Amino acid sequence: MTLDPENPEAFRRAAHRLLDACLDQFEAARDHPWQPVPQAVRDGYRLDHGLGVGEAELAQRLAAEVLPHGTGNTHPRFFGWVHGTGLASGLMSELVAATMNANLGGRDHGAVDIERAVIDWARSVFGFPQGSSGVMVTGTSQATVIALACARMRALGPDCRAHGQGGAWLTAYAGAGVHNAAKKALELLGLGGDNLRAVPETAAGVDIAALRAAIAADRAAGARPFAIIGSAGTVDLGRFDDFHALADLAQEAGLWLHVDGAFGAWTRLAGAPWRGLTDGIERADSLACDFHKWMYVPYDCGMVLVRDEAEHRATFAARPSYLAGQSRGLAGGEPWFCDYGTDLSRGNRALKVWAALVAYGPDRLGAAITDNCARAAQMGALVAGDPHMALIAPVMSNLCVFTADARLDTVGQSALNTRIAQDLQLSGEAVFSTVTIGDVTGLRAAITNHRTQAQDVDRAIAAVARARDAR
Amino acid sequence: MTLDPENPEAFRRAAHRLLDACLDQFEAARDHPWQPVPQAVRDGYRLDHGLGVGEAELAQRLAAEVLPHGTGNTHPRFFGWVHGTGLASGLMSELVAATMNANLGGRDHGAVDIERAVIDWARSVFGFPQGSSGVMVTGTSQATVIALACARMRALGPDCRAHGQGGAWLTAYAGAGVHNAAKKALELLGLGGDNLRAVPETAAGVDIAALRAAIAADRAAGARPFAIIGSAGTVDLGRFDDFHALADLAQEAGLWLHVDGAFGAWTRLAGAPWRGLTDGIERADSLACDFHKWMYVPYDCGMVLVRDEAEHRATFAARPSYLAGQSRGLAGGEPWFCDYGTDLSRGNRALKVWAALVAYGPDRLGAAITDNCARAAQMGALVAGDPHMALIAPVMSNLCVFTADARLDTVGQSALNTRIAQDLQLSGEAVFSTVTIGDVTGLRAAITNHRTQAQDVDRAIAAVARARDAR
Ligand SMILES: Cc1ncc(COP(=O)(O)O)c(C=O)c1O
Ligand SMILES: Cc1ncc(COP(=O)(O)O)c(C=O)c1O
Repeated sequence: MTLDPENPEAFRRAAHRLLDACLDQFEAARDHPWQPVPQAVRDGYRLDHGLGVGEAELAQRLAAEVLPHGTGNTHPRFFGWVHGTGLASGLMSELVAATMNANLGGRDHGAVDIERAVIDWARSVFGFPQGSSGVMVTGTSQATVIALACARMRALGPDCRAHGQGGAWLTAYAGAGVHNAAKKALELLGLGGDNLRAVPETAAGVDIAALRAAIAADRAAGARPFAIIGSAGTVDLGRFDDFHALADLAQEAGLWLHVDGAFGAWTRLAGAPWRGLTDGIERADSLACDFHKWMYVPYDCGMVLVRDEAEHRATFAARPSYLAGQSRGLAGGEPWFCDYGTDLSRGNRALKVWAALVAYGPDRLGAAITDNCARAAQMGALVAGDPHMALIAPVMSNLCVFTADARLDTVGQSALNTRIAQDLQLSGEAVFSTVTIGDVTGLRAAITNHRTQAQDVDRAIAAVARARDAR
Repeated sequence: MTLDPENPEAFRRAAHRLLDACLDQFEAARDHPWQPVPQAVRDGYRLDHGLGVGEAELAQRLAAEVLPHGTGNTHPRFFGWVHGTGLASGLMSELVAATMNANLGGRDHGAVDIERAVIDWARSVFGFPQGSSGVMVTGTSQATVIALACARMRALGPDCRAHGQGGAWLTAYAGAGVHNAAKKALELLGLGGDNLRAVPETAAGVDIAALRAAIAADRAAGARPFAIIGSAGTVDLGRFDDFHALADLAQEAGLWLHVDGAFGAWTRLAGAPWRGLTDGIERADSLACDFHKWMYVPYDCGMVLVRDEAEHRATFAARPSYLAGQSRGLAGGEPWFCDYGTDLSRGNRALKVWAALVAYGPDRLGAAITDNCARAAQMGALVAGDPHMALIAPVMSNLCVFTADARLDTVGQSALNTRIAQDLQLSGEAVFSTVTIGDVTGLRAAITNHRTQAQDVDRAIAAVARARDAR
């Protein structure tokens, strides 16, 4: 009558076999780069046949047909986009989370207490005050929406929740290298992506004088500047803004300061000289960051911190009678996390972070982050030492963007770099992604991979050189 | 140097022990109702001590301190809010998902193919056309935001992405029982929660004449009606709108028809008479629903379907150079799911749905849904047969809302029902939530629990009677 296993012992055996398959795959991560999925496997995924086969056969299919065909980010020479690697603690915590099947929207139970513990820990890492609030979300894109909704509320006042923003012309400011998530957030909020002003930046981040001028120009034109978005690690080059300067200007101009720290915020746990890159971040009104990138926690897992809990709650809280809190019982446990964002039902993202911290601790996680920066520096040195390669920008943290052959014109370089990225992916040698800086599409490595060792960097750059010379 | 286990064999042993603990907990679900978390356990969650202990000790802590303290929705007499139960297939699939650690934002790999298979399957279940699109999200709240953003785009035209909605006064319409997620979505979009008009409803859903009149009145006042939101199962009473009537009116008035089918959409898989409740839903412009409620899949897991893929994509797609697609290699695999919503990095929500369908199939899942409706009807009959209890509304699907003692005045009933809900939660006997309908706060059971059997319903109602009489 229920959907529980008809034969619990058979389920148990199948689950243990599947766990072994997972652990085999996990241990052999070094041998499994991304590879294209065979068409027959793809076709087999379709849900138009063979359904209802029970847990044991499901386990076999998961092990044989599903497990081997991931994104490849578990491999030590995966440097594409900004992908975390995953952790052994994540296997354990996700198994427990699925068994518990807790809903972290609110109420009084252990899973929400664990989310509170994670938020408290993050608050202390980033120097946010005791009264600040936070909530875990899918990722920095969602976190940015939440933060900018709070900023809008401060600018327009609480009435905007009920009445809408009317014709208010709000403008926001960020360095030109800010991630597109900021623009998408403004679009979703109905404020218009073009009202995010791209301010010129230098290697030291947003040009403060240009930012001040942009704000003044918009004010003069009748707009209402409402937020500055700083970047702790831009997606293209890994640049960090000067957060003290941004905080000073935000204060002076009466703007909300949000920081996108998707991956770079975690340099806060690294050693010198990277540790200092986030100085001043503690003065932000809100901070978005991910655990699924540089904290290596399995997807998806992000967080937003908001300095002023009251503003955060006022932007999102809502309790119709079917969600009323109670003084006793399961409906206790205020505050509820659903009052700090869009999601009502919420999965257990906190547990995988908690598990990573319990198993490895901030010091070991920080050492891995430090080592990733050192590997990026190593890659930068190899590129600089190659007779034909060239860095497109200096390596500032964990990002190395370069061209394989600076002798070519920009069109030739772009075509070559694109081809090399594709070839190395297809051969399983290494995964670089590409990015266009100015006129050149370059090879881009973002090292947020705890498996990457010095020899992997050597090997990847040697492979780039070979692919270049083989043309 | 890496964060991988220092001793793989010890990790393997610990993981198997943890799996056994999970399976023990899973098998004994019937013996573990929600109970308050002891303060010492809560205190132990704090991340200010004892970090970095390795995988084996993590496994012990997970089993002893974390696993037992969930929301209680795994228990057969949990009827609170609308919580799914979880599935054995979910344990397996989450383990595999954590091992793979795929990012389903896009690119060319097996995990996104599985999401495509799930969307295809859902499309065919709901009768959406071949060209329609879909994306998995945390839940119906997010799905509603995405759907209404698409509706706004249709109303205002593509320019609103770049320029914002300006002073456009858009209004939306739903039955008074619509879930608050719709209002929150309008708030987030900057359209104003008050611009969601609460239209009177009857047992047959939204009153169509009143809806037509509300649209006309807003038009006359200068507003731009843009969307009708139908409900396939209202959260308070489980009502279903007449989707053919809504689709006719939406067409006539040129409005977007969105349907919130968070749980109720899945009556589509049930037997008669419930199967017909969603007739006409195939005519909607968008549909939001959850797998973590009535499909029993672990949290979190929702989906939105959009009839017109081009509108959906035009609302969200964005590819800066660092996300450029390629003709070959890992950056192939168009379309990318990040182009259909807010999330860029995306966890593997699809796999747990795929696993449930492979293991149990739509027929067995549908039989469980049918049985849940039958259990709600059984509960309704017990209430109606009790000399003092009374139904607050007829049982229409899986929701039973009632008062424990109709002899009291409304204040007395509300206090009694609230106290009974709390007492039964604290004793571990059963979890009802409460809802206020008119003047009375009643007991509310939403049966989306595949473990609930006839005897559980008997026992829960007997416990309500005892708690009432013990006052
Ligand atoms: C700097 C930066 N911001 C925001 C994002 C978006 O984060 P998410 O993918 O978690 O939504 C990214 C993703 O790579 C990023 O690198
Ligand atoms: C009818 C209805 N709509 C929307 C929601 C919100 O869905 P979610 O919690 O998945 O965001 C719910 C949740 O109970 C619901 O019952």
